Amino acid sequence: MTTQRADTICALSTPPGIGGLAVIRVSGPEAISIANACFRGKRSLVDVATHSIHYGQFLRSDGSIADFVTVAIFRAPHSYTGEDVVEITCHGGYLMYRLIIESLRANGARLAEPGEFTRRAFMNGRMDLVQVESVAEIIHSQTFAAQVLAIKQLGGSFTAWIRNIRDELSSVAALIELELDFAQEDVEFAKRHELLERLEAILRDCRRFIRSYSGAQILRNGLRVGIVGYPNAGKSSLFNALLGRPRAIVSPQPGTTRDYIEETLPVQQSLLRLYDTAGLRSSDDAIELEGIALARSVIEQCHVLAVVNDLSIRVEHSDALVSSLQREFPHVVVYLVQNKCDLIDTIPSPRAEDEVIVSARTGQGIDELVKRFTNVLEQFTAELDIALVNERHRESLERVEAALTTAHNALSVGLPGECIALDLRTAAEELSTMLGERWTNDLLDRIFSQFCIGK
Amino acid sequence: MTTQRADTICALSTPPGIGGLAVIRVSGPEAISIANACFRGKRSLVDVATHSIHYGQFLRSDGSIADFVTVAIFRAPHSYTGEDVVEITCHGGYLMYRLIIESLRANGARLAEPGEFTRRAFMNGRMDLVQVESVAEIIHSQTFAAQVLAIKQLGGSFTAWIRNIRDELSSVAALIELELDFAQEDVEFAKRHELLERLEAILRDCRRFIRSYSGAQILRNGLRVGIVGYPNAGKSSLFNALLGRPRAIVSPQPGTTRDYIEETLPVQQSLLRLYDTAGLRSSDDAIELEGIALARSVIEQCHVLAVVNDLSIRVEHSDALVSSLQREFPHVVVYLVQNKCDLIDTIPSPRAEDEVIVSARTGQGIDELVKRFTNVLEQFTAELDIALVNERHRESLERVEAALTTAHNALSVGLPGECIALDLRTAAEELSTMLGERWTNDLLDRIFSQFCIGK
Repeated sequence: MTTQRADTICALSTPPGIGGLAVIRVSGPEAISIANACFRGKRSLVDVATHSIHYGQFLRSDGSIADFVTVAIFRAPHSYTGEDVVEITCHGGYLMYRLIIESLRANGARLAEPGEFTRRAFMNGRMDLVQVESVAEIIHSQTFAAQVLAIKQLGGSFTAWIRNIRDELSSVAALIELELDFAQEDVEFAKRHELLERLEAILRDCRRFIRSYSGAQILRNGLRVGIVGYPNAGKSSLFNALLGRPRAIVSPQPGTTRDYIEETLPVQQSLLRLYDTAGLRSSDDAIELEGIALARSVIEQCHVLAVVNDLSIRVEHSDALVSSLQREFPHVVVYLVQNKCDLIDTIPSPRAEDEVIVSARTGQGIDELVKRFTNVLEQFTAELDIALVNERHRESLERVEAALTTAHNALSVGLPGECIALDLRTAAEELSTMLGERWTNDLLDRIFSQFCIGK
Repeated sequence: MTTQRADTICALSTPPGIGGLAVIRVSGPEAISIANACFRGKRSLVDVATHSIHYGQFLRSDGSIADFVTVAIFRAPHSYTGEDVVEITCHGGYLMYRLIIESLRANGARLAEPGEFTRRAFMNGRMDLVQVESVAEIIHSQTFAAQVLAIKQLGGSFTAWIRNIRDELSSVAALIELELDFAQEDVEFAKRHELLERLEAILRDCRRFIRSYSGAQILRNGLRVGIVGYPNAGKSSLFNALLGRPRAIVSPQPGTTRDYIEETLPVQQSLLRLYDTAGLRSSDDAIELEGIALARSVIEQCHVLAVVNDLSIRVEHSDALVSSLQREFPHVVVYLVQNKCDLIDTIPSPRAEDEVIVSARTGQGIDELVKRFTNVLEQFTAELDIALVNERHRESLERVEAALTTAHNALSVGLPGECIALDLRTAAEELSTMLGERWTNDLLDRIFSQFCIGK
């Protein structure tokens, strides 16, 4: 995609769905005149002041009324995109906005591509690339914790860190390059031991950011908890008990659950993402086998497994399953959930730390189980103040870290300045790319394709 | 609910979900000061002009930044509700708006009840009750056809009709009552034969509106098409073929579909609402029986049934099922869909008008089938220019029609004016209730409870 700044784009900027209002955004040199062509109000929109709102009828191409709307006018450069922008607020629902967009298109606007408004904001210098990506983060955040991280990023704290480091690395590189010009004279503009210390500090920051990524992903998307076990252990019952509502069909017949079911349970500032799965056993039934294959693919993605055991059969009944899952998925935290404790007379004590006694039917032990999951979440996400939420940033910082590590090693063993300066330049340029001061169309296409239409 | 006009309410007015923007609406005497307490921009919102927009930071209670927002100010009475209104536009997504609302509530706003903004608009005389209901219609419309009907209603065409009839009936009633005062003198202020003709015309309109209701419901919600038949006839395959995508799990094993699946297929200005159901047969399997019971409950709600027959077994294989469904559901249009025509060598001609030969696998005949459904839709919804989309209106108009029919009969057989005047008054009062000129809290509660929060 090449950005054609000469044309005018429009799109629904609020989610489609049942709601009181919907907002359609129009941006470009003809935004105001196109909106005005569809609008019948007290005044012509062409003449009104920026940041003013106007009530009137929005017309369809045949002159009939599409809706009664308010229209907000933002004149360039004082708008989201930096261009003339019109925001049309119409009635909500699945259809009204389409009539409005149909009219705008009939009058010369075209439908915006995903992220195109924000892309124009970037091209017009209204935000840097890290801020652009934080906008996407804010919109897609599924947890308050991730939201808070993203808004800090939009506010510019991460941008400031990147810019500082970049400037520092550039100036050190320049000093070293200057030394090279005076190579005969053996001067040292950049003091080596100070530089070493500074590089170590920067590397520490880099590594802290890189490490923060996986925790931030969990904060952002939730901790994935798979509910697994042999057939009829009460997985769906436990799933429903955790959710506090009858989401999955429960029956005494083994193999009731086929497709896996995913639901989320908000905890603190984040989410548990619960998966109810088909019972694991050998089977000849094709549909059941498909369900079991699905269950395994879910398990691979989980941070935590709750292996549900039917206590009324035997405490040890699922031990072999637990061992094999632990062997196969060593990075996953496995809990053994002893279910149906309401069916037995003497409730045993848990045999180990990672065992919880519950009854999905009576609710006994369910709170304790949620607490265990929440503890895991906390361990994964401890000490995330500023954290890296974006994969591109992580990849970039990994390249920065690699370059700086090379520079640091070269410096430690007293290699010539040329190599060091080159690595510092590489790192600085990578940081500039992060900010979007250096970019390619490919990079922008990749970033903006993740946006929703209308942003 | 009693409307407390003294307090200030807030709510998300756009649908929750992934989108570029979200709009939070605040209304009430403190709307501007509460918003201002959370806002850090160039100017205090307290001082700015009506219909103006301001950019700034929206703060959380702890002083940190929730988001960067634009705030639109509408001063009473020039707002949706007639009160001071503030509309805060923040980033979209599932969470951001909650931070904004949290702040507003911490500063004294309370969460609006469903429809409370529109209720305030009604109480402040910004719209009548028919218009209020058309707002709900517009938002919930699932078809363009229903949208067009509702916007006409919001524009006031139906209101004008009601008001005219109401005024006419009131003045005729007044004339007849006046005659009663002159009872001794045997005058006739209201000419009986003219009155009869006029009543007949009004009754015709009433009945036309009442009749339009069921067609309008179909335009509004779509034509419900149940896909039914014996197990393994290829119902899910047909369902997928109609949708053009693999929505339902298909397997050669009978009884694969358990829960029914509902999907919509847009046609022209309306919708087909397709239901894939469990195969009908006697079974001992509890889960399958539950599926069959569900299928029957779906059939009861359908306008059209597509009985799927496996042509590769026998053309007549499902004839008994068709007959029994026709007997049991006489108002439902039944088509016999001869499926799997790709499996037989000589494809037979349809034995009757209501038989269609298809192959869900190859797609043969699918377009023809959609065309048949669309024809049914057209028959149900022909001649709907202004149509009754609201159940309350239909019930009201049925009462008006009943009262006017009584009046008409009384008039025809020359009964005394007293009875006639009473019936005319009853009809006129019913029409006033429709407009909301007469209302009870119960009535308003019922109407506004159907609204979404934020409208």
